[in-house]
Amino acid sequence: MVIAVDAVGGDHFPENPISGAVMALEEIATLKILFVGPIDLVKNELKKHSYDHNRVEILDAPEIVSMDDPSSAPVKSKQNSSINLGIKALKSGSINGFISAGNTGALLMASTLFLGKLEGVIRPTIAAVFPTVNGMRLLVDAGANLELKPEMYFQFAKMGSIYAKEIMGIDNPKVGLLNIGSEPEKGCDIHRESFNMLQDLPNFAGNIEGKDILSGKTDVFLTDGFTGNILLKFGESVPHALEHLFENAIQEMDVEKEVHNHILQVLKKAVHTFDYEHVGGVPFLGVNGVSLVGHGGSTPLAIKNMILNASHCVESRLNEKIVTSLNI
Amino acid sequence: MVIAVDAVGGDHFPENPISGAVMALEEIATLKILFVGPIDLVKNELKKHSYDHNRVEILDAPEIVSMDDPSSAPVKSKQNSSINLGIKALKSGSINGFISAGNTGALLMASTLFLGKLEGVIRPTIAAVFPTVNGMRLLVDAGANLELKPEMYFQFAKMGSIYAKEIMGIDNPKVGLLNIGSEPEKGCDIHRESFNMLQDLPNFAGNIEGKDILSGKTDVFLTDGFTGNILLKFGESVPHALEHLFENAIQEMDVEKEVHNHILQVLKKAVHTFDYEHVGGVPFLGVNGVSLVGHGGSTPLAIKNMILNASHCVESRLNEKIVTSLNI
Repeated sequence: MVIAVDAVGGDHFPENPISGAVMALEEIATLKILFVGPIDLVKNELKKHSYDHNRVEILDAPEIVSMDDPSSAPVKSKQNSSINLGIKALKSGSINGFISAGNTGALLMASTLFLGKLEGVIRPTIAAVFPTVNGMRLLVDAGANLELKPEMYFQFAKMGSIYAKEIMGIDNPKVGLLNIGSEPEKGCDIHRESFNMLQDLPNFAGNIEGKDILSGKTDVFLTDGFTGNILLKFGESVPHALEHLFENAIQEMDVEKEVHNHILQVLKKAVHTFDYEHVGGVPFLGVNGVSLVGHGGSTPLAIKNMILNASHCVESRLNEKIVTSLNI
Repeated sequence: MVIAVDAVGGDHFPENPISGAVMALEEIATLKILFVGPIDLVKNELKKHSYDHNRVEILDAPEIVSMDDPSSAPVKSKQNSSINLGIKALKSGSINGFISAGNTGALLMASTLFLGKLEGVIRPTIAAVFPTVNGMRLLVDAGANLELKPEMYFQFAKMGSIYAKEIMGIDNPKVGLLNIGSEPEKGCDIHRESFNMLQDLPNFAGNIEGKDILSGKTDVFLTDGFTGNILLKFGESVPHALEHLFENAIQEMDVEKEVHNHILQVLKKAVHTFDYEHVGGVPFLGVNGVSLVGHGGSTPLAIKNMILNASHCVESRLNEKIVTSLNI
């Protein structure tokens, strides 16, 4: 099993991608890593670590796609970038999966363009893990497709369910359609039509509302990429806002120093649930290859988890299961 | 100044509407209250309070619109309901404003149908107050119009700004268009076209993202009613989810009983910001009359604040200012 790691993806490269990959090597004995990035940068960073040199290779990719580059950068102006060369290596079959904490739009475009779609897939989608009181659950679509058709909701429901079961370990995942009320007639035409179509799925649990996400009413939350993206970024902003509100509340209540520290520790632990930096990335579902993207702020732990997830996607034959599910 | 109060709106009637109205009477010497509801129910509840009997009247409305009734109930099957008779009294000019913690859809339909639209208004909208680290700000639309046109965003921006300034006391409110990125080309056609149109407003601050809401990047957040409704209900669910996460974190950390209690007090104070039950309702902007709706769980304090807000809407000539703003 070879997983390629974008050595220059995210806000903390090359440190975090390389630390995380070395952690993954320690965890899976059969794993090999192909770092993709500027060769000298990768070599220098690797010197800080001890690892089995036989299990690590480097693919030189001198160009760096920044978070602000247009989505077309890897396929147009920066063809010698880690994203372009990494995805092309995946396409060639020389590696089993590719992970990156880099520019999501650029990764999606390169993945869709070079890997192509799985048989029967209308449009690939980005899923995102979302915190709930039951643990992480899956939100689809997280921003890849702003406007959906009923058939796309239907496919996203199937693909999301398979990912939730195989990779997130959720047995019999329930799917909910995000809407402004629970009744079938709620929402716009697209929601009513999609509701009807989704009823053919045995694990469709009906419409869910905004209040049903954090409470984990279902395991997969279906929505359009516009709403999904806004919800995702809203959720990400919760911990920081809470810190602010807690500091204010603590000051107003004039609590003792020791209690103050206790409270901040509890806060940190509680909102850890919302902390995307520790989550092992999310997959592009529907592309013909295992390509995962992580948060720009991914910690080494997040990178390690992303590599583990990619490895699970390969081992569990996720994409074969998706194809079977869509073409029965 | 006469404000009519729906005595049977919300989850805790007639107690909360009547307690809240009595509080409002104590606060504004020139205020009179018209309770609208089943006369015996109101009379019995009023016996529990001491108040100036010359400043209170009752309009008998024997039928009760429940939270689950269809939006058309007051105008069709329950014409003797507090919503129908209250809004009609407002239309007749015998009262200055109407407030209710009842069925929002029913209130919107009755308000739009009987009061009509202000001159120049394409579609009335429901605004909603939304918690930020800077205090409460305004989200428009909160669910009245699921699909918008650029002209509607433009009008909602103007109406929301006027409400934010006159009633919420926010000087020079900035307006942001909720989108999936800050660049003008982000989003769907409707967002790009609306962005262009909104640029004509001096207080338009451009696109904002999901992460910019809690941080209070702008004072008015513009979005369609679908996204707005989902965000609003998501926000409302945050305190309950946090309680759950905090209880878990506290148990895992095995803190002392006293510290435990301290932490819960701080939590309560901090998430109070998210607590909609204390907020004084939200207006239907664009209807020809002062009609405010509050959260079903409105406390007496929320009812009092809603009456005060209605009174401010009347005194500040909010609707005249909206008409002027839309027709220049």
